Order: sequence, then C-alpha cells, then structure tokens
Amino acid sequence: MKILVINCGSSSIKYQLFEMADESVLASGLVEKIGTESAIIKHEIPGKDEKVVTGEILDHRAGLNRVLSLLMSKEDGVIRSAEEVEAVGHRVVHGGEYFSSSAIITSEVRQAIRKTIDLAPLHNPPNLLGIDAAQHQLPHAAHVAVFDTAFHQTMPEHAYMYPLPRVLYHKHKIRRYGFHGTSHKYVTIRAAEFLQKPLETLKMVSCHIGNGASIAAVQNGKSIDTSMGMTPLEGLMMGTRCGDIDPAIVPFVIAKEELTLGEVKSMMNKHSGLLGVSGLSGDMREVTEAMFDGNPAAKLAVDMYVYKLRKMIGSYIAAMNGADVIIFTAGVGENASLIRQRVCEGLTFFGVELDEEINAERSKEERRISTAKSKIEVLVIPTNEELMIARETKSLVES
Amino acid sequence: MKILVINCGSSSIKYQLFEMADESVLASGLVEKIGTESAIIKHEIPGKDEKVVTGEILDHRAGLNRVLSLLMSKEDGVIRSAEEVEAVGHRVVHGGEYFSSSAIITSEVRQAIRKTIDLAPLHNPPNLLGIDAAQHQLPHAAHVAVFDTAFHQTMPEHAYMYPLPRVLYHKHKIRRYGFHGTSHKYVTIRAAEFLQKPLETLKMVSCHIGNGASIAAVQNGKSIDTSMGMTPLEGLMMGTRCGDIDPAIVPFVIAKEELTLGEVKSMMNKHSGLLGVSGLSGDMREVTEAMFDGNPAAKLAVDMYVYKLRKMIGSYIAAMNGADVIIFTAGVGENASLIRQRVCEGLTFFGVELDEEINAERSKEERRISTAKSKIEVLVIPTNEELMIARETKSLVES
Repeated sequence: MKILVINCGSSSIKYQLFEMADESVLASGLVEKIGTESAIIKHEIPGKDEKVVTGEILDHRAGLNRVLSLLMSKEDGVIRSAEEVEAVGHRVVHGGEYFSSSAIITSEVRQAIRKTIDLAPLHNPPNLLGIDAAQHQLPHAAHVAVFDTAFHQTMPEHAYMYPLPRVLYHKHKIRRYGFHGTSHKYVTIRAAEFLQKPLETLKMVSCHIGNGASIAAVQNGKSIDTSMGMTPLEGLMMGTRCGDIDPAIVPFVIAKEELTLGEVKSMMNKHSGLLGVSGLSGDMREVTEAMFDGNPAAKLAVDMYVYKLRKMIGSYIAAMNGADVIIFTAGVGENASLIRQRVCEGLTFFGVELDEEINAERSKEERRISTAKSKIEVLVIPTNEELMIARETKSLVES
Repeated sequence: MKILVINCGSSSIKYQLFEMADESVLASGLVEKIGTESAIIKHEIPGKDEKVVTGEILDHRAGLNRVLSLLMSKEDGVIRSAEEVEAVGHRVVHGGEYFSSSAIITSEVRQAIRKTIDLAPLHNPPNLLGIDAAQHQLPHAAHVAVFDTAFHQTMPEHAYMYPLPRVLYHKHKIRRYGFHGTSHKYVTIRAAEFLQKPLETLKMVSCHIGNGASIAAVQNGKSIDTSMGMTPLEGLMMGTRCGDIDPAIVPFVIAKEELTLGEVKSMMNKHSGLLGVSGLSGDMREVTEAMFDGNPAAKLAVDMYVYKLRKMIGSYIAAMNGADVIIFTAGVGENASLIRQRVCEGLTFFGVELDEEINAERSKEERRISTAKSKIEVLVIPTNEELMIARETKSLVES
C-alpha cells in the first residue's frame, strides 16, 4: 500500500510517499511560496540528487498537481499513476475536543476541523486547503486526518482545565490541548519496543525539543499531561517562543509598549525564547556556538533553556509519581548532546545517571544514553511524525 | 526594645507591637475603611477581649494617630508614651532590584520605593503612605523597610530572567522578583532550628500556601528560585489567582470577551483560582466542604490545586537536584491536612513518606509530619511575617 503524507502550511506543502510494505520512503519533498510566480519544489528520491523546480504555483491544488507529476514523471518517477496512492494522511494541527484519534475524512470531519479554526487560526485553514487539494487531485484515495492534539485527549480534567473562570471553557473551549501528539505517541511506542517492555507498564517523560518544544507525561501508553496548552506557546522555553511567563506580563507589556494584541502575540511567539534572550538566533546550534565563543547573552539563553527543561522534567516525574524512562527527541533532543548532559547532570537525585561517552557520540540511531545503574532509562529516539501519520492512515484504511 | 510593625493597604493599617526582650506581642490590630466616616479599628491585647472602635478616619496619618492613642490609653494601654516605640518595621511589597535586604528608611530609600511603583502599583503607594504617617507620628523612632521581594534577590540570573526579548528587562525591569520573601525566610530559618541542622547544609522547598501561594527553593539559606514572578500572579493556582496559564490565553480572552487590560488583570487576579473553577469561593475550607458535599466543580478545583502544587514541588526539587526538607506554611499549608496529605501521597517516588496520623492532628505548633523513614523531612512551620519584620528591624537598628 502506497500512502502519501502531507502537511500544509499557508504557502507550503510538505510531502512524503511511503511504501507501507516495508515502510520505505519512495519520495519526499517540499513546495514553498505557493501563491507566487516563483514557487519552489524541492523533490527528493532516496539515493538520488535533490531536484529543484521553480515556477508559478497559485494555490494548493496546483501545488499538489505538480507534486503528483513529479511522482509520476518518466525519468525519475516512483509511481505510474495517481491511482497507486491508496490513501493520504493529512497532518492537522488542532482537533479540539472533537478528535481523540485519527479519522477518515468525511464532511462531518471537515466541519469539525473548521469549527476548531478559532483555536488554531494559523494552522487549521491551510490544513483544510491541503485536504481540499488532495481530495480534488486524488479522489479515489482514502483521506485520513491525523491530529497533533489527539494523543493528549486522554489527559484527565485536572490536567487540562485552567484555573480560570469556568465560563471561558464553556464559551470558548479554553483548555489545555497539547501538541506534538503524533511525535510523543511515536517515540513512546518506539521506546517501549526498544526496551522490550510492555508500553502499559511504563511511566515515560517524553521530551520533544525542536524549534517548538513540549514535554508529555505518558503513563500506560496514554498522555496524562503535556506542557503545551491551548496553543503551542505554553510550557518550555523554545527557539523563538517564551513558554511560561507571569501572565500579568502580557497586559503590562501591552500597556508599556502600546502594542496591539497581534504584536504581543508575535513578540511571544517569534521574538522570544533562545532568540529573545541571546539576541542572536533561535537555533540552538548557533546559540551554543556563540556561548563557546564567550557571548554572555548566549550563555544565559542556554542556561535558562536547560534549567527550565530540567524543572519541567521534575514536575512531570511528580505528575506520575515516578518515571521509568526519559526520552529525548526532535532537533535539539536528538542532536544536542550538551543539552541532554546538562539537563541530566541535575537529575541525579532522581536516580538519573548518564553515560557521558555514549551521550556524546553522534548517531541517528535509537539508543540508551544512561548507564546500566541509572534508575531511570534515558533514551534518544529519533522522531518520525510522517511515518506515524502513514501508520495511523494505514490502520484506519484497513479497519 | 519595643517595635511597631505596620503593613498598610490603600485603606487599611495592620499593626503589631512587639516587646523584643521576649518577642512577645503587646498589642495588635487592624484599621479598615480609612478615608471614610465609618472607619473601624479592631484592637487586641493578648488575654483581653478585642476592642472595636468606629468613627471618621480620613487618612493614614489620622489612622495611625488613633492606633497610638489606643496603645497609650489609660484603661488598657500597653505603653505610656509614643517615645517608647523605638523602631517601626514597615512591610513593603516591592523592592525591585534596589533591595536585597531590609533597609533603614532614608530619603534615598523612599525614592527607590517610589521608583518601583510601576511594578507594584497597588501596593507600594499605600506602603509609602504608611511610612509617611509613621514618620510623622513617630519622628523619634527608627524606621525600617522590610521587603517581600528582598529574600529572593539571591536568585541566579537563569532563574529570574524571562525568555522574552531582553529589551523588556532593560527598559521596564521585567524579571522574576518573587514575593512572600519574609515568610519564606522565617520558615526556612525555623525549619533548620527545628531540625537542629545548620541552615547552610539544607535544601528546602518552602510552600507558602495561603490565599496567595508561592514556592521557594532555598539552598544554603538562600532563595535560588520562587514561583511568583514579576507580580504575585505567577506560579501556583491560588484562592482567586490563576497562576501559570498559557500566556496566549491573555490576548485570546481580551479579543473574544472585548476586555480592557484592567478587566483581564482583574479576571486573572480576583476571579480565577479556586473561586474561578469551583464557582463558589476562593477559600479552601469552603471549597473542600463543598467537595465533601459532592459538588463536582469543587472537587475539580481541589484536584487541580493539589496536582499543580505537587508538580511545582517536583520542579523545585529538580531545581536543586534534591531536597532535604519540604515546609508547609500559611493558611492552607498550616491547616489543610487533606491538601498536605494528597500532595505528599503523590511524592513517594521522591522518598516522601507522611505520617498520616500526625498530619491529621490539628495543632498550632511547629511539627514534623513525615515518618522517621521518609527521605525528605516534611514540616509544618506556622509563619510569622510580623515577627520576622520586627527581628529584621531590631537587627538593623542595633547595627
């Protein structure tokens, strides 16, 4: 079964075509600058050079059409006809309270995604454009929506409600949803397989730390809490997002700096985090480099990042009253051995003992980085949200 | 040495007169509704009935004048002349970055308190009124300012900086200050004395949970982190304050509900927390009672309160990479055995073991509520901010 996974932004389509027989990637790529005459498609077939095509692509339908042409092209196509794509897995950011699992896309499902636009005004509309484009171009295929929020719908009420007047929940659905659910689900399943232990017996702290960052407490394979909230702004300090701050700072800054609501949101989402503190970059590699070059603001940014991550891990261990596994994943989690080391060296009280040599090795593999003596297993599990979406899609199509 | 401790609100003066020879309280009381013709003074001398006086009190000077008259009154006065009051300790909420300890009030000190009004617009102005009134009525006495924030000035930069654009710190002094410092200092000193261990050897998590609530991580007698931030809104869920929420909720609610900045601040400070979730009360006793009567909203409020407190303790243990002592203090911390029990029963992984019988006993005494086997000592230490202010005042006056 061939499954196409797509992830649409307002002017982009990220795609990956899987052969599910062996879960291999047949092709992958990215369409950017949709809506312009200078759109770019970067198309890659494993083992071959990346192909870059530019030209006019005015909407998502046209973009997907071009992608399908590339997938079927004579010289380096991987399918002969569009009908070979049996199913499409769509990444949808926000499923609100409607979806606690992935769903075959029906008109009711589209309607529910539309109803959730208020909560994800930047993400759900392009996700809907992608669904529309794919249903138009691949009408024979089954279409499945896989939500970033669905995995966290198992959170108990005391974890997802905010200590705000309850009317805000009833009127505007203000509650914790959590994000990165597909990734947290994937890495926790993989971690159990890696450890050869049943998922149902494990308490896991899953740290997805990339440009966005969130922690989930996963107990018996279910998310019982996560650090992102109603939006992906809450929780950890991130590349450009502030995460938790005193909420009174928001009206204070609006008043002092005479900001609009849009400006204060932009400040907190795009100009804060590593970038805001270092004044240099939201990219951990660049900030770490500047720190080693003696830049004190970069050092402070890294110190804060590590400290907040360590505290958050502590609070998630308390949430479950214990932990068997801590997982690091995503860009920073998979690659920044220094961050992992500095977080873990402050968790020895909890029984964490890192194997510094193994931790320092560069690798793309799933691996244990704790010592045999460590009371909590510390793992690096490279995430693969696309594969998880493909698997969810396959399982729904087959059922 | 007789020391008067005063704590002024915009229309109130709380006072306590100490004989420092034995730290006994000679008299205490509260003036309310200052600025009206129906002001009330509740004046109490230990061992006697409370005396209630009503009448016109138009400003803080007049209020303090009436208090001094009561303290010197023929029938039940405790001093003969105002000159007997050698020093006055003033509670000042916000000392900004100017004060890392208490200070004899000079014109520079008043100026610095004035400069900090921006950060505490509701508290520092009445604190200044109180200083003015007391200096006017007791010109012979030494006046000392004791700040709620001072104890936390030992926090390292990575704990007090927010992951926001740095310009906000330089321009507006937006950073974590923390509050309840006088209480956290008092109970951590008392805890070390109770345990007969040097303060310098202990890692303590101090939980001041009253109507306002904050946690401090105190290592070697120094605050290294605390949950309240630039304002007393951040951190734990409180009686009527929300504590930490997704900061993106603030602009979202402003837009959806068309609120002014004042209204959104009032919502977060006065209509949230236990009150907002239960819809009943911000008082833990009333909410707990409603929970036992089967009210599901009250149960949720208590569940959330306990859960957030437990997570925060976990994160503060991670902040210090360990803890020797957890202290409960203030209204809820001293009296709500159920809350202590429910918090601690979820911390067994950390080695906490509560003695449930001792915990359930009602007592006004300092006491250990953990078992002999517990790896972390859990103590209840009744706080006494007034006495701490008197001690700080005495020590400054003598030095």
